[in-house]
Amino acid sequence: MIYLDNAATTRTAPEVVEEMLPFFTEKYGNPSGVYGTGREAKEAVTKARDRIAALLGAKSDEVFFTSCGSEADNWAIVSVFEALKEKGCHIITSKIEHHAVLRTCEYLERERGARITYLDVDGDGRVRPEDVEAAITPDTVLVTIMAANNEIGTVQPVREIGEMVHRHGVIFHTDAVQAFGQLPFTVDDWGIDMLSASGHKFNGPKGTGFLYIRKGTPVRAFLHGGAQEHNRRAGTENVPGIVGIGAAAKLAMDSLDEKVRQETELRDYLIREIETKIPNVRLNGSRDGRLPNNVNFSFEFVEGESLLIMLDMKGICVSGGSACSSGSLAPSHVLKAIGLSDSLARGALRMTLSAETTKEEIDTTVAALTELVKKLRNMSPKYEGYLKGIEKSETAE
Amino acid sequence: MIYLDNAATTRTAPEVVEEMLPFFTEKYGNPSGVYGTGREAKEAVTKARDRIAALLGAKSDEVFFTSCGSEADNWAIVSVFEALKEKGCHIITSKIEHHAVLRTCEYLERERGARITYLDVDGDGRVRPEDVEAAITPDTVLVTIMAANNEIGTVQPVREIGEMVHRHGVIFHTDAVQAFGQLPFTVDDWGIDMLSASGHKFNGPKGTGFLYIRKGTPVRAFLHGGAQEHNRRAGTENVPGIVGIGAAAKLAMDSLDEKVRQETELRDYLIREIETKIPNVRLNGSRDGRLPNNVNFSFEFVEGESLLIMLDMKGICVSGGSACSSGSLAPSHVLKAIGLSDSLARGALRMTLSAETTKEEIDTTVAALTELVKKLRNMSPKYEGYLKGIEKSETAE
Ligand SMILES: Cc1ncc(COP(=O)(O)O)c(C=O)c1O
Ligand SMILES: Cc1ncc(COP(=O)(O)O)c(C=O)c1O
Repeated sequence: MIYLDNAATTRTAPEVVEEMLPFFTEKYGNPSGVYGTGREAKEAVTKARDRIAALLGAKSDEVFFTSCGSEADNWAIVSVFEALKEKGCHIITSKIEHHAVLRTCEYLERERGARITYLDVDGDGRVRPEDVEAAITPDTVLVTIMAANNEIGTVQPVREIGEMVHRHGVIFHTDAVQAFGQLPFTVDDWGIDMLSASGHKFNGPKGTGFLYIRKGTPVRAFLHGGAQEHNRRAGTENVPGIVGIGAAAKLAMDSLDEKVRQETELRDYLIREIETKIPNVRLNGSRDGRLPNNVNFSFEFVEGESLLIMLDMKGICVSGGSACSSGSLAPSHVLKAIGLSDSLARGALRMTLSAETTKEEIDTTVAALTELVKKLRNMSPKYEGYLKGIEKSETAE
Repeated sequence: MIYLDNAATTRTAPEVVEEMLPFFTEKYGNPSGVYGTGREAKEAVTKARDRIAALLGAKSDEVFFTSCGSEADNWAIVSVFEALKEKGCHIITSKIEHHAVLRTCEYLERERGARITYLDVDGDGRVRPEDVEAAITPDTVLVTIMAANNEIGTVQPVREIGEMVHRHGVIFHTDAVQAFGQLPFTVDDWGIDMLSASGHKFNGPKGTGFLYIRKGTPVRAFLHGGAQEHNRRAGTENVPGIVGIGAAAKLAMDSLDEKVRQETELRDYLIREIETKIPNVRLNGSRDGRLPNNVNFSFEFVEGESLLIMLDMKGICVSGGSACSSGSLAPSHVLKAIGLSDSLARGALRMTLSAETTKEEIDTTVAALTELVKKLRNMSPKYEGYLKGIEKSETAE
């Protein structure tokens, strides 16, 4: 199997699982318990929090564990809205956010009286800081712009946005589910008040995530109940999961530079190979301002879905749109927002690498792609028309 | 170590961990992925859902995975409130619910315009069905009464309440976090529309739970975002966790009768032993209508907290109030609601058994308790006063 869908989820690192294991059957106490096995669990949770804080350049008590990236996004947005509703009800976001952000904003708009601005992006998928600034009004309470896009990998000008948003006294949240563990940054560098991340995107276990909340940021609890997570997130702590996301953060921190270097090299090699070997393709997203592990191409005259299934038959795992919208055949909102036609959007394929991806795997993938794209095009009447000069191409120079 | 805090959390069964393991490092695909490793993950999630549905006597697509019992409680209550706010804003609950229910109700009351009735209970901690009925008004949208209490183990008359609530056309939710896997029942038996449970309370992993939602019940999503869980709970599925909670449900189903028999016998033995060997004690909760694994005593003239710490030094893990409120020294809301004085409430100790608890462990615990209670009382001026006939006892017959 060649696994090129690391933006959807990653393999939990064996050393991460190793660290988690004792917390299932041996040190299984409830961290709220005052007895020995409870204290062990509590210490393990503290250690994980410290590790994540270190990677963020934050304080430990600014890190709050959640069950996934989506929960962190929901929590950040809903709770700032609730905490500041006396001040205003306006939230600024972009059209290419993950659904965890978009659907939460839509919910607040539909049910709770929020006013949401969904900003356009440029052809590379970048939000323009000046557009954010122009959208700010006296009742703006929150700007939420993702750090890097999950489909096309475009990295946003987070620092510029953060700095500017702060000048206006507005809170800045970023969905860093794709960026955390892929890009080196600190929350101070980037001027971030709140940040969402998800464990299974950086070799931690599924069912884990965290929300960073800068001290002093006015927020509320999202899950109400027990006093866990400093009274901010009820529910018995997922001790093995928390140990796992902490161990994964440590791994990421220790190997980040090397991983970025290695992935970037392979990513650029994959892009070059596809552009050299397959005609009528379009690289989606920014050529240089993109995640080290993200490659996204539209193959003209081809359905991405068919390509994906045929690659699966060869044991190669890739993705069409984002994993979350798969199952639906509507063209991706991100690809539409960067201006792709429906047909180019439907021809898109995302390949996302990991530190474990090898050059051989890339070569095998490119060979398979070259063959399959040719095969599929040969079955396409539109492609036949293009070859005969009847149909125009959207990708030919 | 003698572990008698199974109501706080249980040891994950080794066979449960065994089933989970492949989903971390081998079958780590995203269930939304259409390729092989994604399909494997999806099938595993379906199997877990089927297992839980079987135990509930429900349909598979009525089971929705969450990250804990608290999330299930929050979801049930907030989302019925949102779905039915045109109809009314009145919710009925009891004073002895878990904080996951109480704090959610308080949130809706404080922030969202809900009206909440908090019902009293009798001295055993039972909600009276006639009190529920009397509280129903035309704008009542939800009744939420727990199946069994986490502190004193009292089992509620769920069937009577469910039947009556349905006659009034109101939705019935029950927090079955303590009851699921301890009591045999089906959702049809008990007339339940929505039910919350938590994996780590029945030998599944922490960080897992589910909400049962009867088909046709008007609810909304609580976590907004991706289309997971039939569009009702966003976030990449916690595949290993879901496999784990499913395996734990299967285990519970296979051994329930035997477990209930065994625990009940040991529970009654523990109660008898304490009542025989230690004077001035009070059994909290119902003598017969209680969970098979719950024992809760107040030891007069003693601080439960001190007892707990001294037991810990002997390697015996028990709990004072509920685990969630530990850390706080306020007397438990449950013990207050059944009429205990502050001092008796502070003298309470909860011991909760598992299928693995042995008679030898019970004997060791009783011996330790007898010795420690004596020791602590000998240091208590109030107890001295009682012996001298100056202080009155609340527990002496
Ligand atoms: C009755 C009851 N409800 C809800 C909960 C919350 O469960 P969790 O800690 O898994 O969120 C608990 C756990 O203590 C409980 O005992
Ligand atoms: C940018 C982004 N945000 C949020 C999420 C949601 O993360 P999770 O699935 O862990 O809830 C994802 C995952 O696909 C993502 O890529």
